[in-house]
Amino acid sequence: MNEESKPLVICAPEPRTLDLIFTPDRLSQLRHRYKLLETTEDAVATLDDATLAEARYVLGQPPIPAETLAKMENLRAVLNVESNLLDNMPYDEVFRRGIHVLTTGAVFAVPVAELGLALALDLARGVVGADMDFRNGCEEWGGDGNANARLLTGAEIGIIGFGDLGKALNRLLAGFRARVRVFDPWLPPSILEDHGVEPASLETVLSSSDYVFVLAAVTSENRGFLGAEAFERMRNGAAFILLSRADVVDFDALLDAVEGGHIVAASDVFPEEPMPADHRVRRLDGFIRSAHRAGAMDVAFKQMGDMVLEDMDLMDRGLPPMRCKRAERETASRMRSRPVTTN
Amino acid sequence: MNEESKPLVICAPEPRTLDLIFTPDRLSQLRHRYKLLETTEDAVATLDDATLAEARYVLGQPPIPAETLAKMENLRAVLNVESNLLDNMPYDEVFRRGIHVLTTGAVFAVPVAELGLALALDLARGVVGADMDFRNGCEEWGGDGNANARLLTGAEIGIIGFGDLGKALNRLLAGFRARVRVFDPWLPPSILEDHGVEPASLETVLSSSDYVFVLAAVTSENRGFLGAEAFERMRNGAAFILLSRADVVDFDALLDAVEGGHIVAASDVFPEEPMPADHRVRRLDGFIRSAHRAGAMDVAFKQMGDMVLEDMDLMDRGLPPMRCKRAERETASRMRSRPVTTN
Amino acid sequence: MNEESKPLVICAPEPRTLDLIFTPDRLSQLRHRYKLLETTEDAVATLDDATLAEARYVLGQPPIPAETLAKMENLRAVLNVESNLLDNMPYDEVFRRGIHVLTTGAVFAVPVAELGLALALDLARGVVGADMDFRNGCEEWGGDGNANARLLTGAEIGIIGFGDLGKALNRLLAGFRARVRVFDPWLPPSILEDHGVEPASLETVLSSSDYVFVLAAVTSENRGFLGAEAFERMRNGAAFILLSRADVVDFDALLDAVEGGHIVAASDVFPEEPMPADHRVRRLDGFIRSAHRAGAMDVAFKQMGDMVLEDMDLMDRGLPPMRCKRAERETASRMRSRPVTTN
Amino acid sequence: MNEESKPLVICAPEPRTLDLIFTPDRLSQLRHRYKLLETTEDAVATLDDATLAEARYVLGQPPIPAETLAKMENLRAVLNVESNLLDNMPYDEVFRRGIHVLTTGAVFAVPVAELGLALALDLARGVVGADMDFRNGCEEWGGDGNANARLLTGAEIGIIGFGDLGKALNRLLAGFRARVRVFDPWLPPSILEDHGVEPASLETVLSSSDYVFVLAAVTSENRGFLGAEAFERMRNGAAFILLSRADVVDFDALLDAVEGGHIVAASDVFPEEPMPADHRVRRLDGFIRSAHRAGAMDVAFKQMGDMVLEDMDLMDRGLPPMRCKRAERETASRMRSRPVTTN
Repeated sequence: MNEESKPLVICAPEPRTLDLIFTPDRLSQLRHRYKLLETTEDAVATLDDATLAEARYVLGQPPIPAETLAKMENLRAVLNVESNLLDNMPYDEVFRRGIHVLTTGAVFAVPVAELGLALALDLARGVVGADMDFRNGCEEWGGDGNANARLLTGAEIGIIGFGDLGKALNRLLAGFRARVRVFDPWLPPSILEDHGVEPASLETVLSSSDYVFVLAAVTSENRGFLGAEAFERMRNGAAFILLSRADVVDFDALLDAVEGGHIVAASDVFPEEPMPADHRVRRLDGFIRSAHRAGAMDVAFKQMGDMVLEDMDLMDRGLPPMRCKRAERETASRMRSRPVTTN
Repeated sequence: MNEESKPLVICAPEPRTLDLIFTPDRLSQLRHRYKLLETTEDAVATLDDATLAEARYVLGQPPIPAETLAKMENLRAVLNVESNLLDNMPYDEVFRRGIHVLTTGAVFAVPVAELGLALALDLARGVVGADMDFRNGCEEWGGDGNANARLLTGAEIGIIGFGDLGKALNRLLAGFRARVRVFDPWLPPSILEDHGVEPASLETVLSSSDYVFVLAAVTSENRGFLGAEAFERMRNGAAFILLSRADVVDFDALLDAVEGGHIVAASDVFPEEPMPADHRVRRLDGFIRSAHRAGAMDVAFKQMGDMVLEDMDLMDRGLPPMRCKRAERETASRMRSRPVTTN
Repeated sequence: MNEESKPLVICAPEPRTLDLIFTPDRLSQLRHRYKLLETTEDAVATLDDATLAEARYVLGQPPIPAETLAKMENLRAVLNVESNLLDNMPYDEVFRRGIHVLTTGAVFAVPVAELGLALALDLARGVVGADMDFRNGCEEWGGDGNANARLLTGAEIGIIGFGDLGKALNRLLAGFRARVRVFDPWLPPSILEDHGVEPASLETVLSSSDYVFVLAAVTSENRGFLGAEAFERMRNGAAFILLSRADVVDFDALLDAVEGGHIVAASDVFPEEPMPADHRVRRLDGFIRSAHRAGAMDVAFKQMGDMVLEDMDLMDRGLPPMRCKRAERETASRMRSRPVTTN
Repeated sequence: MNEESKPLVICAPEPRTLDLIFTPDRLSQLRHRYKLLETTEDAVATLDDATLAEARYVLGQPPIPAETLAKMENLRAVLNVESNLLDNMPYDEVFRRGIHVLTTGAVFAVPVAELGLALALDLARGVVGADMDFRNGCEEWGGDGNANARLLTGAEIGIIGFGDLGKALNRLLAGFRARVRVFDPWLPPSILEDHGVEPASLETVLSSSDYVFVLAAVTSENRGFLGAEAFERMRNGAAFILLSRADVVDFDALLDAVEGGHIVAASDVFPEEPMPADHRVRRLDGFIRSAHRAGAMDVAFKQMGDMVLEDMDLMDRGLPPMRCKRAERETASRMRSRPVTTN
């Protein structure tokens, strides 16, 4: 294809890089199909008018002031290669013009779901503790080591938040014959039923589950909505697995509930990352710690590139994007997860 | 029911007890339907002729000499509430007479499969190490901690031995879209295909898997069949999860393969239980230890009672038992797993 | 709730009626939560300004001229209770303002998929012919009647068009262990793979399938895209099942291919409905006829009401609709299926 | 392999033939691995002593008198390539000696289950009637033709008899989200639960199902157990699909129940085959007829050969057969289905 006739893509994917999100093969495809302008976030608004007018896609989430946007008359989509939305472009006008804002957080769904299942099974069977005891020569053999052991098969499982991650986790649970209840106020009950799970209130999910998975994104409305009262509602000995963002829970109340022996817990996210060296979370029993490692796998980053290419192909053909998640006019301004600063 | 007209069950379930394998409700049912003679293993052969003649079932696996068996003219089944067969009764004559010898090892299938999956996911994501690092204040955050992380979803998985446990594990894997290959020389290929797995040679299972699960029972023929050569065949970085009996592997060769960094591994069984206090397995990195805890859960023992009651109900009605596993004339003498001495 | 404070819904659901799409209970709910203005399609544009300004939802697909739309300043959605889009409102402005245009065609997915499977199984086993022969006293018994019989289990299946209907059919096929290939140029390959089917070209779907299901909507681009050449490409004896719209095939070429004995076929849709009394399709062997009955089941119409209520509930809470299908800016003008005139 | 050292198989597979049950490739394999003595049923008892003593397998179900059996000192199995057991050999002695009697009826499970599903979907949607009306120019279009239409998805389904066929049907139903209840007095409840179905009494299955599938083999105890009272118990408009043997129902009572409009029905089996030319079943509305065609497909017969080869391979290696169904000491004499006389 003649270089000049290729559609222009402005690339400013910070904190990602093109090499992080594309395999060499996919990067070749990208370069073959598009003219790439690789720049930094802050430089986008300073590009010349002709370049802005020509750009069909923005790859990344750079600040786009209103006057810059006005010049981007051929823009079809901002593919932000993130799971979050920064408040750095006039979304109303973006939506008015039918420009798609696409996020790629779905790539983390399977990696996070697998770690979530690993943590749940570990809490159920005491894998970490059993291995530490064995190292220390104080392991208990056979049934003696299973006083608190329990199964996931046939258990009652609660999921809070049923986006891509919730759906991925539910799929992993397919073989466990579990009863899965879901609280998600953004989804109609019948969609949950179509996925084979039971719609339930937050209260029911908390009080009727052996395992509670928290997968809800942070919004302007749900900060700290899981506090002392929520943990009290939970079954004695139940497991609480936190995978989305620490801001949705009152973290101290969570640690208290574990320390008091009412529940066990595991978390991949923390109110400060890293946590202070002397924080009690570091030694708390009945708690498994993972340092925000659930999603950040290379295989996930590479899938971002695949998704971006697939949706750009659809949009090139005048079709709507189907692979990435589209920001919604109604909820764009409510999403409040802090964007990541490192991959 | 008139007590006298109830069928007689000789109970000698050592090392189990009736209270271990029956819930109070089930034990009531058992007592309601049958006349129980609770005795010890060694006393069975000393029972009086009338009692022996009357007994319909033996619950447990006591020694039954030929002359004792000859007197048990109404015996329909020995329900041994174990997974193993002791060489303590004349099996040929038992089979000739059509007396069923029933084992209940299937109750351990789901508990062991769940622990196996927990260990595999743990090896894939470094859950134990990440938690220990976090405790010690040296955790790595985000992608930095994921250098060796990998997924189970879409992986190539090998299963060696496809009995109840293999089938349970395969069911748990339903949501992982994995390619599962199975080596089991006792099963025809088409049965494996019916379960959605690929029949494969031992060599292929070893060399083409990201995760290898060893679920094979010990027989007179397969002691130590997984040795240095087998581990060499495995993919670099692959995970080896041993769940059945330590006797099927050359344990030192396994530890060498892990110590050399070629593979990672986890095991629930050991050549000596407990292992010596100073054994290198206790500190080996890339290895997760579980002290024979996979199956011995209360929920599993209670299921034994359920199975026993269901099959006794069928046999009472003149039907063949369908719930427990029947010892087979061809293979009874080949089963060589050491019976457990504790529950 | 005070009647005056309820949101206003303009109802003009022709050719549906409120009683068709709502059960009595659901209709009570609708009336309880909303103020309903029941009118006819043509009267909507004549409503007074205050009414238009107040309306939050339009239920139905009445003509909405630009000047009428301009007055509807609180309009959030047009819920058209159809599967098609009429060219009777200024869609560009509708989309610019973020008003959702929602269709409910998904309710027909399961009914159509079940009939599609019935027709495929019928073609595979000759159910209609065998019953007619039995009535006529000329039935063939046992294997003699199975010369052309074949299985769906393990077959190669092609699906053309993978919207709600394709997904429903694929779900019904879950137990058949079939290899399913899908042609759908509007979906990226990875979404098809997520559903467990193989993305394929139209040519491959046609030439490699034992059963071809045509589920594609008519667009401005695909009229008659399945003609003589397509049928020639098909395997000898393969089955062609047409469920979406007759306009996507060259119907005469289809009948020729069946008459010539190359394929067998079934169709729920016809180029004229009803077909002329003397049309050859009426007596063609190797062809099963269904008079556009696949979707029009009462249970489907009632589900429309459920979907409408669920999405209105979300929009009432400021959330985007998730249950109905949204018209897309890019494709709204391409959809060309003739709307139904009867239910 | 030296011809003389090959194991001997006596082949008398009437009414099958070797060419019916083996593909050319499989037949080559059979001949390569075994020495075949092809004879007729009646000639087996007349074979010379050396031949009888040498035979490892009998393929077919010839009469084997006690004195003949006594000479067959190396006999491991009778592979009868049928679904039934004739009373033509001393089964007690066969079982006493541990000779397996193997049946291959499982090959019919999928073909029969698919036809059963076809018949159920046809009854649900009136496929036969709609096609006949269309031929006759009196078809009803759209919803007008759907007055009695109903879905299988989400329905309540009853299965009577849960052997290979019941399990195959249940697998085909996987995508229908149906509630499946099963009556099978020969299976313990927990095995049914393992298959995801609900154990239920015959009464509950009849009275709580929208579709009742009869898959039960005829035994000495269940002749005609489904009579007028059973049909009365069924829901008004429910569908009765008979697939196993006509002898389990009171056929006249079934026809009465359909003629009276209480239920609809379909059957693949009949009390006389063929039925008299003037029998009312030939013209009964609400009834679909299939002339014992459900199982007799070439693909099923060929699978018999595969099963036989797989189990002979296991037995050659001293292992128990796992692929075919073994006759059971307790029930062999109860099986009363008439053997087929034609394939």
